[in-house]
Amino acid sequence: MKKGKIFSGMRPTGRLHIGHLSVLENWVRLQEEYDCVFGVVDWHALTTSFEDVQSLQQRIREIALDWLSAGLDPEKCDIMVQSQVKEHAELHLLFSMMTPVSWLERCPTYKDQIQQFGLQGKEINMYGFLGYPLLMSADILLYLATHVPVGQDQIPHVEISREVARRFNFMYQKEVFPEPQVLLSEVPLLPGVDNRKMSKSYGNDISLTASPEEIKEKVRLMITDPGRVRKTDLGNPDVCVVHTYHKIYNDVEVEGIASDCRKADIGCVACKQRLAAKLEAVLGPIRERRDQLLAKPGIVDEVLAEGSRKARARASETMSLVREAMGVKGVLD
Amino acid sequence: MKKGKIFSGMRPTGRLHIGHLSVLENWVRLQEEYDCVFGVVDWHALTTSFEDVQSLQQRIREIALDWLSAGLDPEKCDIMVQSQVKEHAELHLLFSMMTPVSWLERCPTYKDQIQQFGLQGKEINMYGFLGYPLLMSADILLYLATHVPVGQDQIPHVEISREVARRFNFMYQKEVFPEPQVLLSEVPLLPGVDNRKMSKSYGNDISLTASPEEIKEKVRLMITDPGRVRKTDLGNPDVCVVHTYHKIYNDVEVEGIASDCRKADIGCVACKQRLAAKLEAVLGPIRERRDQLLAKPGIVDEVLAEGSRKARARASETMSLVREAMGVKGVLD
Ligand code: SF4
Ligand code: SF4
Repeated sequence: MKKGKIFSGMRPTGRLHIGHLSVLENWVRLQEEYDCVFGVVDWHALTTSFEDVQSLQQRIREIALDWLSAGLDPEKCDIMVQSQVKEHAELHLLFSMMTPVSWLERCPTYKDQIQQFGLQGKEINMYGFLGYPLLMSADILLYLATHVPVGQDQIPHVEISREVARRFNFMYQKEVFPEPQVLLSEVPLLPGVDNRKMSKSYGNDISLTASPEEIKEKVRLMITDPGRVRKTDLGNPDVCVVHTYHKIYNDVEVEGIASDCRKADIGCVACKQRLAAKLEAVLGPIRERRDQLLAKPGIVDEVLAEGSRKARARASETMSLVREAMGVKGVLD
Repeated sequence: MKKGKIFSGMRPTGRLHIGHLSVLENWVRLQEEYDCVFGVVDWHALTTSFEDVQSLQQRIREIALDWLSAGLDPEKCDIMVQSQVKEHAELHLLFSMMTPVSWLERCPTYKDQIQQFGLQGKEINMYGFLGYPLLMSADILLYLATHVPVGQDQIPHVEISREVARRFNFMYQKEVFPEPQVLLSEVPLLPGVDNRKMSKSYGNDISLTASPEEIKEKVRLMITDPGRVRKTDLGNPDVCVVHTYHKIYNDVEVEGIASDCRKADIGCVACKQRLAAKLEAVLGPIRERRDQLLAKPGIVDEVLAEGSRKARARASETMSLVREAMGVKGVLD
């Protein structure tokens, strides 16, 4: 007996890095307990980079491969591509008719991003960008999701989906959509090796499928306590990227290492070796699963096609309920 | 050889009145010269009356029946229902990603209507209402329309569809969408019998399929020159509703009648009888076609289903071009 239904998605950014791992680990847990649909939300990607579509299909395949490598199991959950299920667009359009512009304008991420992208000189204030939380609501409600796993910053978006569900149900006097609950997942913020935000474009990330050599090299590049020049200098782990990683991936040793660092009982080279070993223990199995998947050409496309097919069937059931509630049956239905 | 492609639509308002006739007469001419798709745009109806859907299917059938009665021929044109072709929603969503909010906000009809409905206390400022010209652009461009027959007030909407087409073609460096041209159709403004705006809700309209008795009764109710109390009073046709109708439906006699009215050589009863005869000559054949259609139960549904099926095939061809231009081929394509 499942605890409920979940929809969650990621934009097709291409290969993931270790900063995404905690979200994926959470999904892998959730697929056991909930009826889950995980979507590569490619239409959302167009809200901020509608020019860059040439590589889109490649990025969709890469992110899906990473999901599978991290342990998502197509026997346990639906893994689908948003643009392959047109009902996302249909439900978004229906919702747009009953959603005041003000609900969207007051969304905290909206003005933030307008400002942020405005500074970068991007013409970002697109109609679809304003409607982003509404498309997200359609994604969620199309699968009658009861729960949505999100970080703190996404809570306002789930709130809009709850308002939309309430409004629809009230308007048509029928409980078609559950009001989805937030499943708050704390996502630890992993810095890049240079202590800036981790990003592929900065080259400061550790890929989810990095080889042992790549892991070692990235850990070698990690910025340590800048006040500790010689091994005999006392260190301050609180300003060290390596320590941030130990806290997350080495909870058994982290206290000891920190105390040794403060007393100069451990050198940075040794400290980094211990971290690299821990990261390898985490990433090794992911890399292995990835290699197994790569040995079966076409497997990712098959998973996405099958998952999208299942998602279409679910979506079309929901749209039947929607039409029934609205008292509408089309000439081709 | 057709002159081009046309898309045009009407909201499913239910049975039409004589005020809609000139638009339909224009469509009937256009179906001979152009490759036409005529759509009952039911999703648009939701932009202003999303609550009132119980009667929607009935209103769709009634308006389609009136189109057929007025002479639209399913052998010559596609007659379809917008909501039956989900690609309208898909293309609208894609366009939303590349259309600045400012293009929509500056649309003259937008602020006008916000104000108008605001005065009536309706909560109309919905996201979908702001996006109305964009959905119209998707309707038009989905069928690669080269021409759009509209009245003066709709020109800004066609202009947005041209801008959207230009932007898409430029962005993906491919001429997918023609820039649709305006086919300006002058729509004479027919007043209601009480000289207010003609509207079913005021009861001052003449139905497109009025019986001879109804025509006579509505003409009888028409407001004449209020200064002409007795038949011997000189009349002023310029302030007479009957005269407005003579100008449109009785161009042979109108001058003579006006001059007789000014000299009191014709009485209002006789004048109205002549108008009623003219209206019967126009509406009689429409009513007869309607009666023939009503004798074949299910014919309207068949026409709409077949037209929507053809429209789906066209829409799916366009979406192939769109995906090709964007360099995108989905896992289920
Ligand atoms: S010993 Fe470890 S925690 Fe201390 S400064 Fe060096 S790398 Fe950082
Ligand atoms: S005679 Fe005809 S035009 Fe003149 S006032 Fe009467 S109805 Fe109007």
